[in-house]
Amino acid sequence: MKNYLKPHEWQIIEEGFDPHYNKISESVFSIGNGRMGQRANFEEDYSGETLRGSYVAGVYYPDKTRVGWWKNGYPEYFAKVLNAPNWIGIHVSVDNQRLDLAKCKAENFKRVLDMRTGLLSRTFAATFPDGKKVKIESKRFCSMAHGEIGAIRYSITPLNFSSKVTFSIYTDADVVNEDANFDEKFWEEVYKEASEGRAVVTAQTKKTLFHVTTGIHYVIETGGQRASFDRINVEKREKYAGNVVQMDLKEGKETVIYKYGAILSSENHPKEQLLADCHKVLDEALAKGFDKLLEEHARVWAHKWEECDITIEGDVAAQQGIRFNIFQLTQTYTGEDERLNIGPKGFTGEKYGGSTYWDTEAYCLPFYLGTAEQKVARNLLVYRYKHLQKAIENAQKLGFSNGAALYPMVTMNGEECHNEWEITFEEIHRNGAIAHAICDYIRYTGDEHYLVEYGLEVLIGISRFWAQRINWSSHKNKYVMLGVTGPNEYENNVNNNWYTNTIAIWTLKYTLEAVDYVRKDNAAHLEEIVKKTSFDEGKEISQWKDIIEKMYFPEDPKRGLFLQQDGFLDKELLNVTDLKSEDRPINQKWSWDRILRSCFIKQADVLQGLYFLEEQYTIEQIRENFDFYEPMTVHESSLSPCVHSILSAKLGYKQKAYDFYLRTARLDLDDYNNDTEDGCHITSMAGTWLSVTKGFGGMRVKDGKLYFNPFLPEQWKSYSFRLEFRERVIKVRVTKDGTETLLESGDPMDILLKDEIVHLENGKAVMANRT
Amino acid sequence: MKNYLKPHEWQIIEEGFDPHYNKISESVFSIGNGRMGQRANFEEDYSGETLRGSYVAGVYYPDKTRVGWWKNGYPEYFAKVLNAPNWIGIHVSVDNQRLDLAKCKAENFKRVLDMRTGLLSRTFAATFPDGKKVKIESKRFCSMAHGEIGAIRYSITPLNFSSKVTFSIYTDADVVNEDANFDEKFWEEVYKEASEGRAVVTAQTKKTLFHVTTGIHYVIETGGQRASFDRINVEKREKYAGNVVQMDLKEGKETVIYKYGAILSSENHPKEQLLADCHKVLDEALAKGFDKLLEEHARVWAHKWEECDITIEGDVAAQQGIRFNIFQLTQTYTGEDERLNIGPKGFTGEKYGGSTYWDTEAYCLPFYLGTAEQKVARNLLVYRYKHLQKAIENAQKLGFSNGAALYPMVTMNGEECHNEWEITFEEIHRNGAIAHAICDYIRYTGDEHYLVEYGLEVLIGISRFWAQRINWSSHKNKYVMLGVTGPNEYENNVNNNWYTNTIAIWTLKYTLEAVDYVRKDNAAHLEEIVKKTSFDEGKEISQWKDIIEKMYFPEDPKRGLFLQQDGFLDKELLNVTDLKSEDRPINQKWSWDRILRSCFIKQADVLQGLYFLEEQYTIEQIRENFDFYEPMTVHESSLSPCVHSILSAKLGYKQKAYDFYLRTARLDLDDYNNDTEDGCHITSMAGTWLSVTKGFGGMRVKDGKLYFNPFLPEQWKSYSFRLEFRERVIKVRVTKDGTETLLESGDPMDILLKDEIVHLENGKAVMANRT
Repeated sequence: MKNYLKPHEWQIIEEGFDPHYNKISESVFSIGNGRMGQRANFEEDYSGETLRGSYVAGVYYPDKTRVGWWKNGYPEYFAKVLNAPNWIGIHVSVDNQRLDLAKCKAENFKRVLDMRTGLLSRTFAATFPDGKKVKIESKRFCSMAHGEIGAIRYSITPLNFSSKVTFSIYTDADVVNEDANFDEKFWEEVYKEASEGRAVVTAQTKKTLFHVTTGIHYVIETGGQRASFDRINVEKREKYAGNVVQMDLKEGKETVIYKYGAILSSENHPKEQLLADCHKVLDEALAKGFDKLLEEHARVWAHKWEECDITIEGDVAAQQGIRFNIFQLTQTYTGEDERLNIGPKGFTGEKYGGSTYWDTEAYCLPFYLGTAEQKVARNLLVYRYKHLQKAIENAQKLGFSNGAALYPMVTMNGEECHNEWEITFEEIHRNGAIAHAICDYIRYTGDEHYLVEYGLEVLIGISRFWAQRINWSSHKNKYVMLGVTGPNEYENNVNNNWYTNTIAIWTLKYTLEAVDYVRKDNAAHLEEIVKKTSFDEGKEISQWKDIIEKMYFPEDPKRGLFLQQDGFLDKELLNVTDLKSEDRPINQKWSWDRILRSCFIKQADVLQGLYFLEEQYTIEQIRENFDFYEPMTVHESSLSPCVHSILSAKLGYKQKAYDFYLRTARLDLDDYNNDTEDGCHITSMAGTWLSVTKGFGGMRVKDGKLYFNPFLPEQWKSYSFRLEFRERVIKVRVTKDGTETLLESGDPMDILLKDEIVHLENGKAVMANRT
Repeated sequence: MKNYLKPHEWQIIEEGFDPHYNKISESVFSIGNGRMGQRANFEEDYSGETLRGSYVAGVYYPDKTRVGWWKNGYPEYFAKVLNAPNWIGIHVSVDNQRLDLAKCKAENFKRVLDMRTGLLSRTFAATFPDGKKVKIESKRFCSMAHGEIGAIRYSITPLNFSSKVTFSIYTDADVVNEDANFDEKFWEEVYKEASEGRAVVTAQTKKTLFHVTTGIHYVIETGGQRASFDRINVEKREKYAGNVVQMDLKEGKETVIYKYGAILSSENHPKEQLLADCHKVLDEALAKGFDKLLEEHARVWAHKWEECDITIEGDVAAQQGIRFNIFQLTQTYTGEDERLNIGPKGFTGEKYGGSTYWDTEAYCLPFYLGTAEQKVARNLLVYRYKHLQKAIENAQKLGFSNGAALYPMVTMNGEECHNEWEITFEEIHRNGAIAHAICDYIRYTGDEHYLVEYGLEVLIGISRFWAQRINWSSHKNKYVMLGVTGPNEYENNVNNNWYTNTIAIWTLKYTLEAVDYVRKDNAAHLEEIVKKTSFDEGKEISQWKDIIEKMYFPEDPKRGLFLQQDGFLDKELLNVTDLKSEDRPINQKWSWDRILRSCFIKQADVLQGLYFLEEQYTIEQIRENFDFYEPMTVHESSLSPCVHSILSAKLGYKQKAYDFYLRTARLDLDDYNNDTEDGCHITSMAGTWLSVTKGFGGMRVKDGKLYFNPFLPEQWKSYSFRLEFRERVIKVRVTKDGTETLLESGDPMDILLKDEIVHLENGKAVMANRT
């Protein structure tokens, strides 16, 4: 856990330059706009530890799979988020000395991410080896108003000299992925051009043949006037184009480079139009100029914050944490493009590859349900519907048949990318999360018709998978599910993972309900689906009912425990408090077999089931299991603390709920798991939002009504959040005095506050008693 | 299963050239001499499917590990048997057409491996695209008499033309490993020279810095006289040296190239001496000439066959099979160099890397015990003793302490090379095989003193590992062993693998016996060991006794079954006969999860324990378990059929014993598992020998006496084998009339034939009644 960032309600602030933190800061201070994004790399050179990374949404590369020992059914490739052309770079040289904070002395270094306006800025003074000293101020953003525009204001002031200075201002597609499996370069040059002030490079990805055109245009001003140059050279190299400008800088006088980037991809433009369109975008950016672009960008952010801000009074660290999470989620996925999804690192790093995990359904979906128009969440479901055929093919590769669907663990286009057998083939509970998300969406929105249009087909595919994946145990006289990996990936290839068995049976039941609903709603459409999916209603339904009736679940009835898997009680049952600090995190300190044999739990597993399906269990059951499993949980997945925070809140464990909240909210800011340098944990950030709304706020949907059961952590004066719900906007504010609910827009409605019905009318705040 | 090789008692014969079989034949017809060896590649070019491979014993490369997802404790590298410089090559060109059987038409192709003399020969006629036709005869061997010499007689006769022909005769170190993880080249040139008739290249391996010097010298004769050349050019390229010779060939007249290779490594020569020593070896080879070298080579083979031949009358396929196995084993490992071990592919391919698996202890050791001087088997044990410190370090990497030793799954120098967590960290029964081999060796040789010198230290290290690897289950009130992979690698990360639990407890018991023995034999030495190993006798011994007493074994007492692991009975229990033929082999047809969930067994697991420790079990127990597990066994490991053959013989399942014997004996000749093209299954070949001696012959050692319980498969007229046993040589011949035993050398002795004592005196054959 690190603690070098300054607390602030709206900003992330780093003061002083410590190279050891640079890669962490590059992740944390990342900026993006849903269409592109980048790590907070320096514009000028930096020869120290850095991961230079820019990313363009939807542009990926199918890197050749690297495994030690191939297994049948492994995917041929691993789709990677691609490190995209770098449009931010500015080399600065003074008397043949490159400005490079690994080689110059830095003073008064300050890096600030202003979350309210989405602006990254940086100031410092640098002393070159020969003693010359310059002051640098840079500001940068990826425009939320114009998805293809980025802008930089880069200012340099000589502090103790006057001399010739050279700027090399460029765009560079000669970039590599740090995690390329075979050190391959993934980009090939298609075209480049450079003239005075402007340069464009079009590069193409190998195999996938995406084109990305990156244009730059720059303007240099001194004292508010166009600067005059000594010399200007056009520079072109393989995949690289730019200008080299030499000019005289005077002591104490500021020179400002305005650099505009236009980043266009063939996902959004015909390839043959890319160059012309790039010039248009550059012309537009240039015409508006930096200040106007920033103003438009900040206006979009202001609107976003109105929609989804959560305020916390009396606890700056908590406030900063939640805003950071909302900020990152918002700039990662806007919901406007249904081809996109939410990558685990967003635009902040390369690790994990792929873009879509079960994180989307289990964690992100409720965030977008609560903070965006209904269609955003619906698009996330339709994304999976469109991948159904691939999921069926994926299951076929593993030996399943008759339309059984296994959704991939990791994917870009519906095909599986992951290649560890214990995950790829066995972590099949992901299928359950995808089914459950349909239910979650319908419960929140009331849009049951989704079942007719898309939902049922997906549910049938998934249910068929479960029905084939279990087998009859003559020994137990029950159905069992062998050889799975649950959400707790610190157990592999176990039998009868309680969570997987539970979500599987839940899926079968929900599919039966869905069949009934569609039959009632639109019998003709059901016939179509039956035909399309060759659904043998009679036979399959009776098979599913038999499985529902005779499924085995590992339990310890004496203690009221659901057992994580068969044999769990044979382990040495320790608590996390028994671990020495030098053994943590265990995934960095212990061999894999030791982790597997131990009782320690990476993330909610049995508890994930109790969280998803709480209506099936009594509060006592939830408590018994929470009290048993939580002390064994090391929370080494970013997806873990939020579920525990919500369950703690439900159980009235207020301090625990608060502690887990802080851990999820500040996971990256405090580098809790010692891995933020690889990128931020974007998907789990949705869990932070859930910790506040479903945790502290106790928000649920019961019988179509919004329900709250709020409490106020004692460290806080108040908190508030805002929900979009069935064409209404509700604001909830919880203070020491009680809970204030306000219908900001939409028709009058009833909500449940604990067990009381509260009637809301537009614009009228309702105060309920102290909780 | 293929059937293209001709049956013959002493030869392997391929008639007609089928490119589809070429890589299989390259493996099967491999030749070697314990110090080097090579696949049966053509001397001339071949642009079709081929794996050109020459190998030098002990010369390896630590290839960078390739994994998808790194786990703590994985080794940094994977030691590979290295494809070594090619000394056999001869390019042949007629009028600018290269002789290449992928481009020329082949007739009367015949490849023969004469096992009696260790000679590989090949004859064919080839027609070039322009119609010119030549006859080629080649003979080649790696001298068993001179470990660093190889020789080739390559004859060419123009059949329908007279013309200029060019020979390019070379040595080439620019070779690659087919299985290089990152397509890297492992050899660098150190030195090369070439003059008329001779060329030498010294190459060095990266990282390991082995030097291998490969010299060649050739003589060309026409009509028995030195041929005259048109032109001769010295040729040198990167890592390559040779001569290009142009000469006139006359229709119908034979020209013969005698090519001698000298292959020297820095394992056996100071680096600075390699060049001079290479010239000496070449001079010696040249002075002797091909015929004399072959005669000396054949003489060694004749002697070897006297020592270890097994004859089978009345079944050519069976006879060819056993001789092929003995031939390959003998040319792979001679036991002369204690630094070496028996690689799973010997000198016949690259796959698997490393040189030492538990195969050595479990399968090969008894072969060398029975067919070679005692010191050969002892060297194999001492090899592990020398790796004890590395085994302790290996265990430390996984979190064990206090001198616990985990021997690697695969190794070259004592360090682990394997990198699949389910094998590397979990297939720990290998440790048991290494302990058991000590017992096996002592039982056979009576050399109990080995415990004092080496054995006990190894046993203490292994026992400590077991004591730390188990844990107490409060649930079962027993010790359990979680998270292991048994010999049946079609189960991963299971709990309480019966075999592993059994061999672990056996080790603890045997270690206690060994401590007692050493105490009695040499109390002072025990004190030394106690000190050296910090052995806390009182505490550790009482802990071990507690574990022995309270260990849990999964069983089904009703059916008298030992259960392969916890939960085994929850599987769908099918027989191999229930599988469709298109599903086999399942490891090539099924996804890994499907294999894991199924009941199908790769190789003996419970049965491996019953085989190793048969004295602990009744014949009824063995029968119950064999009858249960054998029908589920797919034998997709080459190590499987032999154990089943021996157990079948023991149980009186004669036809099964014979069937399994044929499958193990002809595994590579018939390409049973469809993988012989990668190389032959060398270590399992020892199992074939065991199938005859311990299976059909019923050979055991009981109370220090050789014991036999022979039967004759009804397909055979007779079989015979020969054993070295405690400074005696005994020949056993089993016919329809009975069993003839003969003490060929050594002091008089008693043996047990079934339950009768038979007294043997030197040179007097004893006939016992019909079995």
